[in-house]
Amino acid sequence: MQIKKSEAKEPSFEITHLEPAERTGLIVVITGTGKGKTSSALGMIVRACGHGMKSSMVQFMKGDIYAGEWDGLKKLACDVELILTGKGFCGIQGNPYPFSEHRENAQRAVGLAKEKIQSGKFDIVILDEINNALNLKLVDLDQVLELIESKPPRLHLILTGRDAHPKVTALAHTVSEVKEIKHAYQEGIEPQPGIDY
Amino acid sequence: MQIKKSEAKEPSFEITHLEPAERTGLIVVITGTGKGKTSSALGMIVRACGHGMKSSMVQFMKGDIYAGEWDGLKKLACDVELILTGKGFCGIQGNPYPFSEHRENAQRAVGLAKEKIQSGKFDIVILDEINNALNLKLVDLDQVLELIESKPPRLHLILTGRDAHPKVTALAHTVSEVKEIKHAYQEGIEPQPGIDY
Repeated sequence: MQIKKSEAKEPSFEITHLEPAERTGLIVVITGTGKGKTSSALGMIVRACGHGMKSSMVQFMKGDIYAGEWDGLKKLACDVELILTGKGFCGIQGNPYPFSEHRENAQRAVGLAKEKIQSGKFDIVILDEINNALNLKLVDLDQVLELIESKPPRLHLILTGRDAHPKVTALAHTVSEVKEIKHAYQEGIEPQPGIDY
Repeated sequence: MQIKKSEAKEPSFEITHLEPAERTGLIVVITGTGKGKTSSALGMIVRACGHGMKSSMVQFMKGDIYAGEWDGLKKLACDVELILTGKGFCGIQGNPYPFSEHRENAQRAVGLAKEKIQSGKFDIVILDEINNALNLKLVDLDQVLELIESKPPRLHLILTGRDAHPKVTALAHTVSEVKEIKHAYQEGIEPQPGIDY
C-alpha cells in the first residue's frame, strides 16, 4: 500500500489532528436495504486500525458464501478478528437450513457477542447483520437491548443489517439508513467480486 | 488478524464460492448525508483485497485533517493506493482556503482520476467525495460524465459524496443513498477516532 499527496505546486500545509476532549464509546446503527452496510463496518475497521484500535466483528447468519473480506481482513496487520457464526440468510437465496438451526446459531452468536463486548479486549465490536437477525426472530429484542446496555462506556458498538428495530435505533448515537436507489441486480447483473461479496 | 468459525456442534458445511458468468465493471454511487460513504468505499477495498484485486482511491477535497484510514490502508498488504488531493471541505468547518484554491486542487484531482481510470493498473477506482466536489462546482458535470464514460468495461468505478448529480446516478448500476437518521454530533459529542475519522 502506498499513500501519497498529489504534487502540490503551492507550499505544503499543516495536517490537523483532531482529538476529542472526551472519548465516548458510540452506538452506531447502519440499516436500510441498500448496498453499503457491512462494507461501511469494514471501513471503520480500517479506520480504527490506523488509530491502533482493536476490533472484533461477529457476523450473524453469514458464513456460507465466501466473501472477499474474509481474506481481506487477514491481510490487515492489526488486532482484528472476524467470527462467522451462521449458515447464510435464513429463508432466502435458496438457503437449505431450517429456521431452528439458524436460530440456534444466532443464539450462540449472542453469547459470543456478549463475551466480546465485556472482554475489555476491544475498542470496537461490530455485530454484523444483527438487526436482520432480530427482525427474522433468530434473536430476541431483549437480548439485543441487553447487549447494548451492557456495553462498557468507552467501547464503540456497531450494529448493522436491514430493518433495525426502533428500540435499538432509539439507544444509538448515530443511525444511518442506507436506501437502495437502484442496484445492478435489477439489470440482471450477477454479484461481482470485490464489490458485492 | 485471525478469522474463525464459531465452534459449531453440528458437522461443518460447505462454503459456496460465487463466480459470475460474466465479470462486469460496475459504476457504484454512494451518496446522501449520513455516516458511511467513505467507510463503505474503504470496506470495498478490503473486500477487493481478499479477491487479489487492485484498488486506487483518489480523495477529493480531503487531506487537511488526519483520518485513521491513512494509516489503516498502509497496514493492508495489498495493491492499494490512496491519493489525497485536497485541503479539506470547501467553505465549511472553518476551512481557510479560498474557492479558487479548492477548485485548482480538484481540477488536478480530475486529471489524476483520469490517469488512474485509464491506466489499466486497477480493478477498482474510487473517487471519494467527487459528488460533493461537483455540487460545490470544484469540478464540472461534463468532467465527471467524461470520467465515467471513459471507464474500461471491466473496471469498477465508485463515486462517493453527498448530493450526487442525477446525471451521474443515471449512469450508475448501483446507487445507495445514506440517510442521516441521527448523528452523535447532535448530542454535542465530538468526532471520535476509529468511527468518525
